[in-house]
Amino acid sequence: MTRPNPRKTKRVSKKVLDQLRRVTTPTLTTQLLKNYRLHNVALRGVLPLDGDMPAFAGPAYTLRYAPLREDLLPEQWMDHPANLMTPAIEDVPPGAVFLMEAGGNVDAGLLGGNIVMRLKMRDVAAAVTDGAMRDIPEICEIGWPVCCSSIAAPPSFARLMVVDRSCPVVVGGVTVFPGDVIVGDAEGVVAVPAHLAADVAKGGLAQDHLEGWVNRRLATGAKIKGLYPPDAKAQADYQAWIDAGEPDEV
Amino acid sequence: MTRPNPRKTKRVSKKVLDQLRRVTTPTLTTQLLKNYRLHNVALRGVLPLDGDMPAFAGPAYTLRYAPLREDLLPEQWMDHPANLMTPAIEDVPPGAVFLMEAGGNVDAGLLGGNIVMRLKMRDVAAAVTDGAMRDIPEICEIGWPVCCSSIAAPPSFARLMVVDRSCPVVVGGVTVFPGDVIVGDAEGVVAVPAHLAADVAKGGLAQDHLEGWVNRRLATGAKIKGLYPPDAKAQADYQAWIDAGEPDEV
Amino acid sequence: MTRPNPRKTKRVSKKVLDQLRRVTTPTLTTQLLKNYRLHNVALRGVLPLDGDMPAFAGPAYTLRYAPLREDLLPEQWMDHPANLMTPAIEDVPPGAVFLMEAGGNVDAGLLGGNIVMRLKMRDVAAAVTDGAMRDIPEICEIGWPVCCSSIAAPPSFARLMVVDRSCPVVVGGVTVFPGDVIVGDAEGVVAVPAHLAADVAKGGLAQDHLEGWVNRRLATGAKIKGLYPPDAKAQADYQAWIDAGEPDEV
Amino acid sequence: MTRPNPRKTKRVSKKVLDQLRRVTTPTLTTQLLKNYRLHNVALRGVLPLDGDMPAFAGPAYTLRYAPLREDLLPEQWMDHPANLMTPAIEDVPPGAVFLMEAGGNVDAGLLGGNIVMRLKMRDVAAAVTDGAMRDIPEICEIGWPVCCSSIAAPPSFARLMVVDRSCPVVVGGVTVFPGDVIVGDAEGVVAVPAHLAADVAKGGLAQDHLEGWVNRRLATGAKIKGLYPPDAKAQADYQAWIDAGEPDEV
Amino acid sequence: MTRPNPRKTKRVSKKVLDQLRRVTTPTLTTQLLKNYRLHNVALRGVLPLDGDMPAFAGPAYTLRYAPLREDLLPEQWMDHPANLMTPAIEDVPPGAVFLMEAGGNVDAGLLGGNIVMRLKMRDVAAAVTDGAMRDIPEICEIGWPVCCSSIAAPPSFARLMVVDRSCPVVVGGVTVFPGDVIVGDAEGVVAVPAHLAADVAKGGLAQDHLEGWVNRRLATGAKIKGLYPPDAKAQADYQAWIDAGEPDEV
Amino acid sequence: MTRPNPRKTKRVSKKVLDQLRRVTTPTLTTQLLKNYRLHNVALRGVLPLDGDMPAFAGPAYTLRYAPLREDLLPEQWMDHPANLMTPAIEDVPPGAVFLMEAGGNVDAGLLGGNIVMRLKMRDVAAAVTDGAMRDIPEICEIGWPVCCSSIAAPPSFARLMVVDRSCPVVVGGVTVFPGDVIVGDAEGVVAVPAHLAADVAKGGLAQDHLEGWVNRRLATGAKIKGLYPPDAKAQADYQAWIDAGEPDEV
Repeated sequence: MTRPNPRKTKRVSKKVLDQLRRVTTPTLTTQLLKNYRLHNVALRGVLPLDGDMPAFAGPAYTLRYAPLREDLLPEQWMDHPANLMTPAIEDVPPGAVFLMEAGGNVDAGLLGGNIVMRLKMRDVAAAVTDGAMRDIPEICEIGWPVCCSSIAAPPSFARLMVVDRSCPVVVGGVTVFPGDVIVGDAEGVVAVPAHLAADVAKGGLAQDHLEGWVNRRLATGAKIKGLYPPDAKAQADYQAWIDAGEPDEV
Repeated sequence: MTRPNPRKTKRVSKKVLDQLRRVTTPTLTTQLLKNYRLHNVALRGVLPLDGDMPAFAGPAYTLRYAPLREDLLPEQWMDHPANLMTPAIEDVPPGAVFLMEAGGNVDAGLLGGNIVMRLKMRDVAAAVTDGAMRDIPEICEIGWPVCCSSIAAPPSFARLMVVDRSCPVVVGGVTVFPGDVIVGDAEGVVAVPAHLAADVAKGGLAQDHLEGWVNRRLATGAKIKGLYPPDAKAQADYQAWIDAGEPDEV
Repeated sequence: MTRPNPRKTKRVSKKVLDQLRRVTTPTLTTQLLKNYRLHNVALRGVLPLDGDMPAFAGPAYTLRYAPLREDLLPEQWMDHPANLMTPAIEDVPPGAVFLMEAGGNVDAGLLGGNIVMRLKMRDVAAAVTDGAMRDIPEICEIGWPVCCSSIAAPPSFARLMVVDRSCPVVVGGVTVFPGDVIVGDAEGVVAVPAHLAADVAKGGLAQDHLEGWVNRRLATGAKIKGLYPPDAKAQADYQAWIDAGEPDEV
Repeated sequence: MTRPNPRKTKRVSKKVLDQLRRVTTPTLTTQLLKNYRLHNVALRGVLPLDGDMPAFAGPAYTLRYAPLREDLLPEQWMDHPANLMTPAIEDVPPGAVFLMEAGGNVDAGLLGGNIVMRLKMRDVAAAVTDGAMRDIPEICEIGWPVCCSSIAAPPSFARLMVVDRSCPVVVGGVTVFPGDVIVGDAEGVVAVPAHLAADVAKGGLAQDHLEGWVNRRLATGAKIKGLYPPDAKAQADYQAWIDAGEPDEV
Repeated sequence: MTRPNPRKTKRVSKKVLDQLRRVTTPTLTTQLLKNYRLHNVALRGVLPLDGDMPAFAGPAYTLRYAPLREDLLPEQWMDHPANLMTPAIEDVPPGAVFLMEAGGNVDAGLLGGNIVMRLKMRDVAAAVTDGAMRDIPEICEIGWPVCCSSIAAPPSFARLMVVDRSCPVVVGGVTVFPGDVIVGDAEGVVAVPAHLAADVAKGGLAQDHLEGWVNRRLATGAKIKGLYPPDAKAQADYQAWIDAGEPDEV
Repeated sequence: MTRPNPRKTKRVSKKVLDQLRRVTTPTLTTQLLKNYRLHNVALRGVLPLDGDMPAFAGPAYTLRYAPLREDLLPEQWMDHPANLMTPAIEDVPPGAVFLMEAGGNVDAGLLGGNIVMRLKMRDVAAAVTDGAMRDIPEICEIGWPVCCSSIAAPPSFARLMVVDRSCPVVVGGVTVFPGDVIVGDAEGVVAVPAHLAADVAKGGLAQDHLEGWVNRRLATGAKIKGLYPPDAKAQADYQAWIDAGEPDEV
C-alpha cells in the first residue's frame, strides 16, 4: 500500500507547547485567520466533558474509526489478537493528544473508565474525538482532560472499529496530520499546523495581553471605536500602561 | 432600495416590559397559543450561557449576519471603515435586546468579551442569537445576559458578515420585527409581537399565579382532573384561597 | 382495528428491577451486545435534566405523540373530554416509567411542572422522552427523575397530540414494547427486553464489580493488556482479592 | 391493550374519491388551508417513482414500521408465522392506499417487485411511504403507482419491522388516521381528512377550473393584479366565458 | 430604518451577460476560485426543474421569505392590500433573475403556474430559489427557466411570508447583493459578483475552449499529465491547433 | 507511519466479477444479510448519474478526500508536483472501481469531464463517491459509469484535498477495504467483501432466477403466501418449470 501524503510534520518544542497552552482557543483562531487566512481550525462541536478542565496542548497521535463491519465484530474485542486499540494505548507517547476520528458517529462511547485511567497513568495529555465517550462519572472522578461531541452508553464495538492510526484524520470537520498541535480549553479544541506553532504562540500571547488591557478600559466606560482594535493613540496608551508596570487603573 | 414591509411596531411601555420579565417563557407561549393561535414564538435552541441568568425583556434591536463573501473579508475587521458592527454597538438603545440572526451558523462566535463588556456598560438588556458566542469564561465573569445556540472559538469574520440592521430577522426559526419584545429566562427565549405585549403580560401573570396554587394542591395528593385546568369548583377554591390571603396550606 | 403485534411481555420482578437499577447503563449495553448481539438498545440523545439524578428502573408505560392536526387542536386541551393525557396520568401504574415517543420533535415541552408533580405523587418511577420538557426550574425543584432530548417553552398542544398508548413506541431510535424495562442513570437511558432482564441484571452486576477491581489495578500503573479484559492470571488475581475480603490495595 | 383514539373515520364515497383524483395536489392544499386553516397536509419528500404516474385517491390502509430489534430478526422473514406483512398484503381492501410509516428511515427498501405485483393484482390503489423502495426497474415495468422518499437496495428486515397496522401513522410529517383519503399525483401526496373530503373535492374542482381560465388570460399579457385572485370584474369575465361555452380565446 | 450595507453594485452590460450565459457553471466557479479565491459562489442544492433548461444569466432581483407569523396570514393572500408579492411581480425588470431566499424551507411552493406565466410574459430571465416550487407540470409546459431545491404542493402562505425585497439575500448558502449576476445551467446556479463579471466572462470562455481541445486529445489516448492543466508544450500544441483552424483531429 | 489494519483482501476472479455484475444490487444485499448477517453493505445515497447506466463490478481502488487546509490550496492544483490525483489516475488498474471517500461533502465536484475521459480510456470500470461530480452534460456524453451523491459546479480543490489512497475508506456509511468488490446498477452501489464474493455471486444468481419465476406466478393472480418465499410445493413447481425448459406460461 502506498501512503501518498506522508507530509513530515515539524516537531514542536516543549516551550512552544507550554506557550500555546496559555493562549485561549479564540485567540488562536484569530491568529490563524488574520496571519495565515486559515478559516477552518476549530473542531466543530468538540467540548470538554468537564467545564473546569485545565487547558492542554500536545502533538496529535491519531486513530481512525469507521463503521463496524459485522463480520469483523469479534476482532474488535480487546482481548482479540487483531484488536487495534490495545497496542495504541501503550504506544501513544507521553505528552501527546490521543485524537480519534469517529466520523461524527455518536451512537457508541469510544473510551470508558478503564482506558482513560491507563492513558492518564501513561502521562498522555488528553483524549479528543468528534465521537462520544462512556463511563462519564468515572472519567470525571479520574480528572483527566477529555473533549468529545457527546456521551453514549454502548461500547465502541457496537458501531465502530479502528481501521488506521498515525494517519491524517478529520475530526469535527478539521483535517489534522499526525504531529499537528492540538490545543484545548473550556471553549473547545483548535488544531495548529506544526510549522506555524511557534509564531502562533508568540502572536497569541501578545494578543491576549492587549485584549486584557482593552477590557479594563471598556469597564471604565470607554467606547469601542479606536480602542478595539487599538488605533495609534490606544497603542501608545497601552505601551504607557506597560511601562508604568501595569497598574490596576487604566 | 425599497423596504416593502416597514410595519411600524407599537412602542411597549417600561411597565409592560417589567411585567413580561416576571412571566415565565412557557407561560408566554401558552398565552400566545391559546389567545392568538400563534404556534411559533419560541426561538429554537437558543438558551442562556449561564443557567442562573436573571430573566430579561426588551424591544428587539436587530442585525442580520450572512455567509462571508471572501472578497469582502477585510471589510469585516472592526477597524475597517465599512465595518457594520462598531456603529451598531454604540447605536443600540439602552434597554433593548441585541438580536442577531446567524442563519443557524455555529462555526464562529459572533461576540466576544470586549464587545459584551461594552454592551453591558451601555445598559443594553441582553444579547440573543441563533449563532454561537466566544470568550465564554470572560462573558460569564462579566455576568450579563447572553442567549445563544452554541459556543465557537473562531471570530465572526471567519465565516460571516453583517449585511443589514434594524430589519426583520429570523432567529431560531421565528420571524421578529424590530421592536417586538424579546423575553428570556432559564428556559429560553420567546418573541412577543409588540401589539400583543400588554395583553400577554396581564394574562401571563394571572396564569402563573393560578398554576402556583394548582401545584400546591397537587403536592397534597389532589388528582389532576378538574384541577388543571381548573373547573368551576377549583376556580372557587382558588378564589377562596386568595380571599383568605394566600395561606400556606391549600 | 387489529393490533398485529400483541407480544405479551414477561413481567419483571421487583428484585430484578432493583438489580438493574444498580448496574450502569454502559455495562447494560455491553451485556446486551456481547451476550445477545443487540446493538441498538440505548436511547439516542435522551439524557437526565439533572446530572445528579439517581438511577431508576421500571417497566415501560407508553404513549405516542404525533404532529398536531390543527382541526383537532381543542381536543388536546386538558379539560376537553377527548383529551388523552389526563386519563394516562391517573392510569400509569406506580413504579412504571412514563415513556413518551415524540418522533424527535423538540419544538414543544411534553410535560410541565403540574403534571410532573402529579406523576411524582403517584409514585411513577420516571418520565422519559425523545421530545422536550418545559417548566424546567419547577421540575428541578420537584426533584423527580426526568430524561429528555431538549427543553422547550411551548405547550405540547402547540405541535403534537397523543394518538395512542400502551402500544409499541420508538424513542431515541429504539423500539420498545410495553413492559420492557427502562433503566436510566447519569449517562442516559437503556431499554432492556423484558425476557432478558434477569440474565442481564446478573451479568451486569458481575461485570461492574470486576471492572472496579481492574480500575484499581490500573491506578497502580498496571498495563491494559491481559488485565482488561482479564486473562486467566488476572482472573485468578481477582478471585484472590475477593477471597481476601476485597482489601484496599490490589 | 387500550387504543385511546379510535376516531371513527367517515367512509368516503367512490364518487368523491373520483373527484379528488381529478384535483391537483397543490389545489387540495390551498383548499385545506384557506377553508380549514390546515397547514400540514402534504407528505414531505414523498414523490412518485415514475413522473408520469397517473393520479390516485383512496382511503388509507396503514402499517407502522419501527427499527429492527435484532433478536426479532427471524420473525421478519416472510415465511415466519409471526411475519406481519404477508397477512397485510392479502387483507388490504381493493381501492385502498397501502400507507407505510417508516419514520423517515431510507436505509432499506420496504417493498420489492414481488409484493408490488401482488398488490397490483389485488386492485390496491397505490403504495405510499416516507421510507424507501427496492427493485425499482421491476416496479417501473409493472407500472403501478408508488410514492416514496428514496430508493434502497437492502430488504426491509435489514433495518425495520412492522409493529402495528390499521393504526394512526405519521408519514412525511403528517398524521393520518385509517380511512383518511390519500391523494397522489406527479407533485406528491396529500392527506385529506375523511370528514372534509366531499367539500374539498367540490371546492378543488372549482378552483382548478378558474385557475385554468386565469392562465389563459395571463398568456395574453394580462397583469396579475385583479386577475389572481379574481376581483369582481374578473369573476364576471370568468362567468361570461363560461356562459359563452368556454371559447378558445379569453 | 437604516440599511447599513447599501453597496452599489456595478451595472453589468448585456454583452457580458451574453458571454456569461455561454460559460458553464463549473468553469465559472474555477475562474472565481483561481483568480479571486472565492470558494463559496455555487448555490447549494439549487437545480433546474427541467434538465434541458437553456442557460440563463441576469442581474439578481431579490426577495426574502421568512417563516409565517400566523397573525399575519391574511396579509399574505394575493388580494390583500399588504401583500408584497403582487407588486414585485410587476416591478422586476425584464432580463433580471427573480431570486427568492426561502431559508431552505421546502414545505411550501413559492411560485405556481399563474405567477410563472406572468413572469415569462414580462421577459424576466428566470426564477431561482433555495425553497420549493408548485404546479410543476404546468410550469414545465410553460417552458421557462426555474431552478429550485425541491417541489411542494402547499401554497407559500402556508409556511412563509415575504418580509423584504431588493435586499441582500442568502440563497443556497451564498450571499448575493441585488445586481450580482446569477448564471444557471443544467448543473446548477452560480452567483458572480457584479464587479468581477466582465473578467470572469472573458476568462471562462477561454478556459472552456481550451478544455474542449484537451478532451479531444484525451479521447485519442493521451495521458493527463502535462495536458491538463497544459504545460508549455501542450499550450504550443493548442495554439497550433487554433492556427490550423481547429481541425477535427487533434 | 504504521498501518495497523493491512488486511490482505483476497483477489476476486474475473469470472466471479462477471457473475456479480449480473446479480441485482437488492439481491446482493439479501444474500449478505441472510447468509452472513451483514446489515450495512449498501452505500447510502450513491446513485448513477444516468439511470440507464449498465451494471458494473470491480475491485475497489480507494482514495480519501478530507476538508481542504487552505495553506495547502496550491498543492491541490493538478499541475503542482505534490498533487495526488494525477498519479492516481494513471495508477488505477484497468477493471477496478475508482472509489472516492468525500465524507459526504457535496459542495464540490470531485471529477470533471477531462479526468472521466482519461479513466474511461484506461478501461477503469466506474467512478463511485459519496461526494459530488461536475461537468455532468460532458460526463453523460462520454457515457461511462459514474455513481455519486450529488452534482456540484465547484472544483474539488475549493473544499477538499486527497490525503490518502489504497487505504480503508468509508463511502456512504459503508467501510470498504481496497480489493472489496464494488457492484453498481440502476438502484445504487453495494460493497461485497472480497472473501465472500464467490458465494454471494452463486447465491444471488439463483435467487434472481427464482424470483423471476415467482413474479410470473403472481402476475397470474397467485397469492403471496407459500409462493414467496416458496414452500415445498412451490419449490417443486419451480423445479418442474425448469425441467420443462422454462416455458412462457407458469
